[in-house]
Amino acid sequence: MSVHVENRGRGTAAVIGLGAMGLGMAQSIKRAGLDVTGYDVAQAAVERFVTEGGRGAGALREAVRDADIVVCVVVNAAQTEAVLFGPDGIAGDMKPGAVFVSSATMDPAVARRLSEKVEALGLHYLDAPISGGAARAARGELTIMASGSAEAFAAARPALDAMAAKVYELGDAAGTGAAFKMINQLLAGVHIAAACEAISFAAKQGLDLGKVYEVITASAGNSWMFENRVPHVLAGDYTPLSAIEIFVKDLGIVQDMARSERYPVPLAAAALQMYLAAAGAGMGRDDDSSLARLYAQLSGATLPDANSQKE
Amino acid sequence: MSVHVENRGRGTAAVIGLGAMGLGMAQSIKRAGLDVTGYDVAQAAVERFVTEGGRGAGALREAVRDADIVVCVVVNAAQTEAVLFGPDGIAGDMKPGAVFVSSATMDPAVARRLSEKVEALGLHYLDAPISGGAARAARGELTIMASGSAEAFAAARPALDAMAAKVYELGDAAGTGAAFKMINQLLAGVHIAAACEAISFAAKQGLDLGKVYEVITASAGNSWMFENRVPHVLAGDYTPLSAIEIFVKDLGIVQDMARSERYPVPLAAAALQMYLAAAGAGMGRDDDSSLARLYAQLSGATLPDANSQKE
Repeated sequence: MSVHVENRGRGTAAVIGLGAMGLGMAQSIKRAGLDVTGYDVAQAAVERFVTEGGRGAGALREAVRDADIVVCVVVNAAQTEAVLFGPDGIAGDMKPGAVFVSSATMDPAVARRLSEKVEALGLHYLDAPISGGAARAARGELTIMASGSAEAFAAARPALDAMAAKVYELGDAAGTGAAFKMINQLLAGVHIAAACEAISFAAKQGLDLGKVYEVITASAGNSWMFENRVPHVLAGDYTPLSAIEIFVKDLGIVQDMARSERYPVPLAAAALQMYLAAAGAGMGRDDDSSLARLYAQLSGATLPDANSQKE
Repeated sequence: MSVHVENRGRGTAAVIGLGAMGLGMAQSIKRAGLDVTGYDVAQAAVERFVTEGGRGAGALREAVRDADIVVCVVVNAAQTEAVLFGPDGIAGDMKPGAVFVSSATMDPAVARRLSEKVEALGLHYLDAPISGGAARAARGELTIMASGSAEAFAAARPALDAMAAKVYELGDAAGTGAAFKMINQLLAGVHIAAACEAISFAAKQGLDLGKVYEVITASAGNSWMFENRVPHVLAGDYTPLSAIEIFVKDLGIVQDMARSERYPVPLAAAALQMYLAAAGAGMGRDDDSSLARLYAQLSGATLPDANSQKE
């Protein structure tokens, strides 16, 4: 009982979206001592959180009614807008002075628009896209690229501290956090495509791919993504840690932003075409390193497969 | 005098090509105690080496006549072939059993062809492209991606040890070292273009570029090249450390190799077009981070300039 009382003292939070990232974020917030309720449109996701000791809600509005902090970790801007302003949207149900922490990757212009609508209701809005993957989400060690008013930061602070190893405070207006995240996604998406173009080109030439990995990770051609994703290719394991469709979405946002600003992005555009081709070839839900398999299919290169690794 | 005798005992070497890389390599070989002679078609480059205590040759054949090891650090395959087999070529003048260490970046097929012709003359050939830049060349801390016969490695060893912090031994046939280098150049060339596409896109959106650098270098969008080149853009300093024309050349080789192997390289191809545009716009001899200026010109983005930094 005393634990319950203590939790209330640290604040009340809701996490909307209990996927790979949201589940870990909800667990981290709970571990930090906040009173947290989780919700997901998939009832199975809610049950998983409950099984692990969390409290689930059966409806969106029920989850947020008592929350000082609502963390929204859905797939994209459209889902975020639906959570706020859709038929079952919560914007009218949140406590006065509560903060909506928006973590989906989206166009900065959309983040600005949502922020204005939320703030007009007497609520706070923190533009807070995340980086780091599911394992770091579960450990409370994400990177958060945040922008918003001082009040929004102050209200969100207990959850931010619980979820993140590093919170970048990037400005006092929504949209800046989103813009930083899109710059990161442009680079990440291009680097995965380049890593896959290079490793399958090495395979096409019959090079020792393990040696290629060793040499490149110690050379000027290295990237965070080459180092992180190429091991999936070497193991022939395309179990999705982050799926092809994520970069279909994120490089799509980059391309739409760039088009509207009359800014050419030939690298991001070339990479997006490869993610689209991989999705079109049936690999949309596979790991994004599946681009290597696409290059192999297009060229007759032979990559390691999981079975040969197990022998 | 005793030093001179001692030098002779450690072997005799020649370095052909005393540019930013070759000069440092010649100095490193000299420092290791070998008896080294430098040659360059530009007499000023030879004089610079002599001024710093080295021995220069006035003609190509004079440089290599006594050498056990000939290190060739010219710009490309065509120059390497001319050094060996051109009108003043040295292939017929090298000592029997000497080794030709070829460090220019080139198509692996050309490396294989040159190797065969050199070995047919009773000489050894080491395919030994380099990575690391001028500063590391001067310190004897290059990375060398080498392949060739055991005899070629053995003959070249004193020079390899003098020039490199790390020598990757990648196989017993010429061409493999070159192929590894081309994989590295594909990635490096794409990553510089992506870094410039991203940082100028950030500028176009009015983001704090120093903050972008801080966030990206700590995030999954980082690359060795982003970390290394973006500071040039932030300082507005495009003094060439490595010029746009280097990647016009190297991504050109990648594209030619890929075309002949029926392997698609959409990322490398998009990047090459940007290097070509930068060269066409008059920046071919500027630092390769000048791609950021090209993106800015194409979009109206404002980048830092050197003057504003000095104020």
